[in-house]
Order: sequence, then C-alpha cells, then structure tokens
Amino acid sequence: MQPEQQFQQLKERLGEVADLTYSAALLDWDQQTYMPPGGAANRGHQLATIQQIAHNKFVSEEIGQLLEDLQPYASQHDPDSFEARLVKVTRRRYEKETRVTAEWVAESALATTAAHEAWAKARAENNFAHFQPHLERNLELAHQYAEFFAPYQNAYDPLLDIFEPGMLTSDVKAIFAALRPQQVELIRQIAAQPQVEDGFMHLAYDEQKQWDLGEEIITKMGFDWQRSRQDKTLHPFTSSFGWGDVRITTRVYAKHMSSALFGTLHEAGHGMYSMGGDASLDRTPLFGGASSGLHESQSRMWENLVGRSYPFWQHFYPHLQQVFPSQLGNVSLEAFYKGINKVEASLIRVEADEATYNLHIMLRMELEMALMENQLKVSDLPDAWNERFREYLGITPPNDSDGVLQDVHWSAGLIGYFPSYALGNLIGAQLWERLHADIPDLPEQIRRGEFSAWLGWLREKVHRHGAMFEPQELIQRVTGTKIDPAPYVRYLRQKYGAIYNL
Amino acid sequence: MQPEQQFQQLKERLGEVADLTYSAALLDWDQQTYMPPGGAANRGHQLATIQQIAHNKFVSEEIGQLLEDLQPYASQHDPDSFEARLVKVTRRRYEKETRVTAEWVAESALATTAAHEAWAKARAENNFAHFQPHLERNLELAHQYAEFFAPYQNAYDPLLDIFEPGMLTSDVKAIFAALRPQQVELIRQIAAQPQVEDGFMHLAYDEQKQWDLGEEIITKMGFDWQRSRQDKTLHPFTSSFGWGDVRITTRVYAKHMSSALFGTLHEAGHGMYSMGGDASLDRTPLFGGASSGLHESQSRMWENLVGRSYPFWQHFYPHLQQVFPSQLGNVSLEAFYKGINKVEASLIRVEADEATYNLHIMLRMELEMALMENQLKVSDLPDAWNERFREYLGITPPNDSDGVLQDVHWSAGLIGYFPSYALGNLIGAQLWERLHADIPDLPEQIRRGEFSAWLGWLREKVHRHGAMFEPQELIQRVTGTKIDPAPYVRYLRQKYGAIYNL
Repeated sequence: MQPEQQFQQLKERLGEVADLTYSAALLDWDQQTYMPPGGAANRGHQLATIQQIAHNKFVSEEIGQLLEDLQPYASQHDPDSFEARLVKVTRRRYEKETRVTAEWVAESALATTAAHEAWAKARAENNFAHFQPHLERNLELAHQYAEFFAPYQNAYDPLLDIFEPGMLTSDVKAIFAALRPQQVELIRQIAAQPQVEDGFMHLAYDEQKQWDLGEEIITKMGFDWQRSRQDKTLHPFTSSFGWGDVRITTRVYAKHMSSALFGTLHEAGHGMYSMGGDASLDRTPLFGGASSGLHESQSRMWENLVGRSYPFWQHFYPHLQQVFPSQLGNVSLEAFYKGINKVEASLIRVEADEATYNLHIMLRMELEMALMENQLKVSDLPDAWNERFREYLGITPPNDSDGVLQDVHWSAGLIGYFPSYALGNLIGAQLWERLHADIPDLPEQIRRGEFSAWLGWLREKVHRHGAMFEPQELIQRVTGTKIDPAPYVRYLRQKYGAIYNL
Repeated sequence: MQPEQQFQQLKERLGEVADLTYSAALLDWDQQTYMPPGGAANRGHQLATIQQIAHNKFVSEEIGQLLEDLQPYASQHDPDSFEARLVKVTRRRYEKETRVTAEWVAESALATTAAHEAWAKARAENNFAHFQPHLERNLELAHQYAEFFAPYQNAYDPLLDIFEPGMLTSDVKAIFAALRPQQVELIRQIAAQPQVEDGFMHLAYDEQKQWDLGEEIITKMGFDWQRSRQDKTLHPFTSSFGWGDVRITTRVYAKHMSSALFGTLHEAGHGMYSMGGDASLDRTPLFGGASSGLHESQSRMWENLVGRSYPFWQHFYPHLQQVFPSQLGNVSLEAFYKGINKVEASLIRVEADEATYNLHIMLRMELEMALMENQLKVSDLPDAWNERFREYLGITPPNDSDGVLQDVHWSAGLIGYFPSYALGNLIGAQLWERLHADIPDLPEQIRRGEFSAWLGWLREKVHRHGAMFEPQELIQRVTGTKIDPAPYVRYLRQKYGAIYNL
C-alpha cells in the first residue's frame, strides 16, 4: 500500500475510534442532563462496552503497524503539518494507551458511572459515607492506572499526563511554589482593606431571565449556536461530540446571580476553543485542545479576564440594568464592577474569586497527591479537607456537600485534573498580555462590544491547532516562554490594586 | 465448557450487542430532540460505526457457535422458558442478520441520518424534491435488503418480517381485504348522519397546561417516571435504552388539543409495554415487544380504546374542565366525548379518527408495495399519494408537507412498518374483548380512575413476555385466535353506532 493510502486508512480507523468516544461523550452528557434515574445501571454497561471497544480499536495492531509504517511519510512532511502532527500525537497516545488494559477501561467506566450516581446522592443528602466506597474504588483504579506507567518519578505523574501531556508533577509543584507566596501576600493585603459591597448580587433574580441573559451575552461574543446548545446540570461542563456539536451546561440560582452568568461565560470559553479547531482535525486525536490547562485558559479568560473586566461591563451593564431594574437600577457601574470582583475566602471553588481561586486548587491537588502516595485514607478525606480549608482560607465548611463533595471530578475518576484549572489561570494571563501587545486597543474594542479581533486572534494562535502541540510547546510558540506565573501575578496586582486601593 | 457457562457467555455477548443498540437508540433520540444542526454529519458517522459494530458482534462466529452448541440445552428446558426462548429467538434473528452485510448496515445508517435531516427540511419548506433523492436511496437500500432474503414470495415480505416476525405480505393482505369493505361501509353510513361538533377542540389551549395535563393523566394510569421522561419532537416516538430508561416524546399545538393529549397517551402505551417486560429480559433480544403490531396495539389501546372512551372521561373530564374553564366550561361531557370521536376524512394520519385511520395505513402500504415492486417511481410518489388520498378519503392534500411528507418513517428507512399500525388496531380490539371477559367491571374501574387491574392484566398476559413469542403465537395464547379483524369491526360499530345513531 502507498503511504498516502496508509495515511487515509489511519484516518479512517481513527475516525471510527472518534465515533465511539464521541458517542460515549453523548451517553455521559445525557446521564448528566436528561437520563431518568432508572437508566443508571444500563448506562454503566453502555459506557463500559463502548469505551472498551474504542480502546481495543485504538490499540489494535493495525493502527500500531500503520503508525510504524508512516514514520518516513511523517518525516517527509513539515513537522508542523497536519500529517506529521497526526502521526506524532497519535503515536504518543498509542504508546500510552497500549499500556492500559481493556479490562481497566471497562471497569473504570462501570465504576465511574456508579460513582457519579452515588456522588449526586451523597451531595444531595450531605452524606460522604455514601460516596466513600465509590471514591475508594476510583482511587484504586487510579493507582492501577499509574502502575501501567511504572517506573515513574511520582505516582501522580501518569495521571497529570492525561490532562497536561508532557508535564511532570515536579514542574507543576515548582510553578505553584513560585506562585503561592505571592497570592497569599496579595490576599493578606486585600484582607486588610475595607471590603467592597456585593449584596446586590444575592437579591432574587428571575432564573429564566438569568438564563436568557447569559445566552444573549455569549451570542454577542460570537458563540455559534448552530453547533451548540446549553442545558442545565448539577455541575456545569462542556462536552463535544465532534466539531459540529459542542455543548455547554450551566446551573442557575435565584440568589446567586454570578453562578449562571459567569458559569455560562466559562463553559462558552471551553466551547469556543473546541469549536475553533480546524474542521480538518475532526474525528482525529488532534481535535479538542492542547491540554486541560489550555482549555481552562480559554474558559477562565471568558469568565474572568474579559467577563469580570471593566470595559466588558461598560458595554453590557446598561443592558443588565434594563433586565434587572429593581435589583441593579441603583447600583453604579463602578459598584457593580467592584462587587463582581469581591475577594473573600469562600466555600465553593467554581464561585471563588480570582485571587483565592488557586488556593482551592492547591488544596485539592495536595489531597490528591496524599491519596496517591497512600499518606491519606479516603475515610479521612473529609477531615483533611476541612483542616486544610481552615488553614488556607480561614473558614470551616459547614457540611460535606459544600466541602469535600462539591466537585464532580473525583466521582468521574478525574484525579489529576485540578492542577489544570490553576495552570489555566496562568496561561490565560500569559495569552492576555500577548493579546494586548498585539491588539493595543483591545479594551476599547471590548468597551464597544466588539469581540471579533480578540476571538480571531485566539482562533489563529490557539484554537485552530487543536491538540497538534503539547501545552508547553504551544505556549512557547505564542508567548515566547513556557508556563510562567508572573503575568498572572501582575494581572492580579494591577486589577486588585485598583479595586482595593493597595 | 459446560452448557450453563455457554449460556452465560451467550448472554454476555448479547448484552454487549444490546449496549451498542441501546447507545445507537440514544444517538437517534438525541438527534430528534436536542442535537444542534451542526451535529448531523458526525451523528451519521457515529450511528454507522456503532450499528456496524453491533451487527458484526451479533453475527460473529462465536455467537453462531454458541447458538449451535446450546441447541440440546435449550431443548432440555420448557419450550416457554427464558432459556429455550432466548436461544430460539436469537437463533431466528441470527439467521436473518447473517444474511445482511455489514456494509449495508453502515450505509443504511449514513443514508437514514442524512435522510432524516433532509425530510425535516423538506417538510418545513414543503419541498418534496429536497427529500426525493434521499427516499430513492432508502428505497434502493430496502431493495438490497430484500435481495438478501431471495427467493421470496413478495419483495415486501423481508421488510414486513422486520416488524412482524413470521407474518407474510399475503397474510396481511388477506386481513386487510376482509377489513376494508366493512370499514368503508361504516364510514359511508356515518357520513350520511348529522356531523358532531368539535370546534371546542380547536380553541387556543395553553401549551404548557396541555403538556402538564398529559403527564398528569399518564401518571395516574401508572406510568413510571423513574424509568422515563417526555420531550418534544417534530414527530412523536418512543425509544428505549434498556429496561430502566424508556422515553417518550410528544408535540403540542395550541389550537389542536388532541395532538398532545392523545399523542402522549399513545406513546405512553408504547412505553408501558417496554417497561412492563420482565427485568430479566433486559440486554437480550427478548427485551422490547413481540412485534411492532403488538406495540401499536398497546399504544392505540391507551390512546383510543381507553383514552377516547366514555368511562375514561367520566373520570377525567371534570379535571379537564377545571384546567381549561374558558374553553370547556360550557361543553358537556357528552358533547366532549362525541367531539373527540368525530369521524371525518382528514389529512394527518396520527390525528385521524379510529374509523378512518386504517385507510391512511392501507394507502401507505399499497404505495410502499408499488415502490418495492417497481410499479411506482419516487418522483411520482406525491401525485400517487394525492390521487389515492382523493380516492380513499375524498380530499386532496393542499401541500406535500401535510401529504406525502407528513410521516418520519420513510426518512428513517422504515419501509414495511405501516401495516403494524393497522394490525395494532385489530390486536388491540382483540385484547380489549378478552380483557372485558376477564374483568367484567373494567368500565366501572376506569370510571373510578382505577387502572391497576387493567395494567396488571396487560403486564401478565402481554408485557412481561417481551419478544419471547411471535405475534401470532402470542395473540393466539391470549385470545384463542390469530389476528382477526372481527373484534375491531364490532368495536367500531358499537361505538360509532351510539355516537352517530346508526
């Protein structure tokens, strides 16, 4: 067979694997949106069967042989070409996935489906004990997964590599070690200043109007509804079933207006990243994004760097006041801007402000590492959570539902994911500095409600490449340096310096 | 391996096939409920890949060998046992599916996904030409399918057998030949009488209230929401992803109150049949129902035999009047009952009354047969539809959207399905006569809003068996005779005799 034909064949085989993983993603989306309770047991079987088939198809000898045979073909192409990158990225994934057994994949699917139901129930009933055996099972599976990659520097490395290809636990620890004292110092300074007022954010806001407003705003920002939709879930997420179907979810609380508004912006950021990939990447391992951290950089850019910026609300605030006149009619733009940027130790990660957010992440990452290094038992996790929460944020969670049970990740087996959120903040700020250098009137454009130059820049520099580059490589290409906490710290100091008169 | 182990292995293999077919059903459900337009192309790939894998897994040598080896095991069991029936029914399906190529399965999935989108657009825009090439393709695939089963008595036989296992086109023709003159005569007699009034059904009814009312009524009838949900679609349908997750859809028109109300009852009837199967049948070919005709007997029993009966509204009408006082406050129960049973030639099958309904079916079946026998071209179908419509129902469809484009079936490749609707009417009436013999105070129970004895009888006699018996066999067991049009004609004559003073 000619290399061209082999390359086509590789694409076809990878296309079938993508059909299966997209289908599994839909089964998961449905489980979190519309599935009646009775469907849970079978959903586990369905996910297990499909993920096992996808895994077996991907690690097949046929794909291995094609990847081997296509090495010369790939080297003849520009290293940045679709052809070279598809072979390279697929080969790396192939080498990883061939270490994982099909049994592990199927057991993991069954376990996480059961764990998700148990977590939802445990959270609703504030009963960690109901979730505990499921988390123990998920942790056992995470250990088994790590062992597929022994020897390793750190048992956490193989998990981290799922979400941040090419990064090591030691890299992330070094970044966080540099960041942490600076964030802590900033929070200390802020705490010494008079607090800003945000009571108006907790009045009763009509839930349907909140929903509509979020959709209106992201529509103006360029969100493509032909290829998306938004639904309600317990925990917001973005899911994609291919280039043409990338869906977001949100949750709405009457007395917590930030939740739906910034949650919608956040998920829309994820959605735009996936939808911004070149269509040719669809149904290949290059579709999606470079890493979870890159993904979070996009979601948190929409949510915070833009969505909590002054120019953004110079544009949207008059409309917001029109929609909610009784709640916001007497709140000035300045007061609103300060209110949505209030810094305060709080319970819930997804609703934490930008200054304290990373502490929520460090806490989770440290607990995950302790669990993976067998220094902490799952049964002791709620206490360990509460202790560390007091230490970092000075408050004690009043219950497990708003504490250790708040996030969906561990139920989904996503141990190793949390660092991506903090890395995303850093990457976002790096891109943001570069964006301002390339588009000097960016704040002015945002003030006018013009998002096309900004979105165009992101598409060109980041989105269209999908997973062609590893995260550090992509960031280096775009910004000239690897992941660096300095721009984020500069950003926080500048923003909160103004708000809190530091 | 011991036969017991082999039987377990067969169940495991069939379970994986079921996981795939249930997943494909979810992909299809999602396409019709929530999928954004951009998802269509990939959805076709996903369905094609999954259906092809399901097909290949089912026709595998392993399953063939297990079925062969398990023949003695099956004969040692009671012929009506789960073990004997699972081997028997699976073997019949295996023998059929091994004739169908994997390519056909994949091509059919791709074609019907594209056809569904095209049909929806064609219908919305009243443009048959947009749908025509897709229907031609689906018909070509139907011909190819029939050829897998050559030689046959009639090219329509292999299609019919998909939906009514064991029945031949000649059987169905004989039943319809006996039925048709009697239905035509009844309609003639009715047309000679003064018409009843149903203008009140076409006032403006709040859509949300219609929706809620339908759900309230089926809840009282015993519908299990733990294992179901209802959503909106262009064309109502029922879909199941296993015993614990059987979903229905409906559509709501403000000025056509019957549509949502009786549509919900209809689909709930399908849903209750699937949910009423013994849980042990789940993830095997025995789950679901004996045939499409049996399924329609259940849906149309809920919709018509109960839902359009006088005792039913003796119970529910006061509540209906409370919900819609301005529309129904001055309409007596008698007038309402007559209105919902008005007999009148009309355009839309799913909204046709019980007396004219079967003519809609005969028309479709005859056109399908003409297409399959190459006596009619797809391009001539709209004219043929309109001519026959005039001939049978005395009216000319004003446009194709309300004519030849009204049903989803042909877009989904479901050629050969329509006879099941008419057979369902006949089977429903047969079961209904037997039900009244076994539960003499059934009308009194319904009048009191008690549905448990009725539902219990159906579960015991019909539902719990799933697909263990072929349709004619099951009906014979329950009623003592095979499919027989006489009870349906008796039912119609009695009901309409009273309403129209015949």
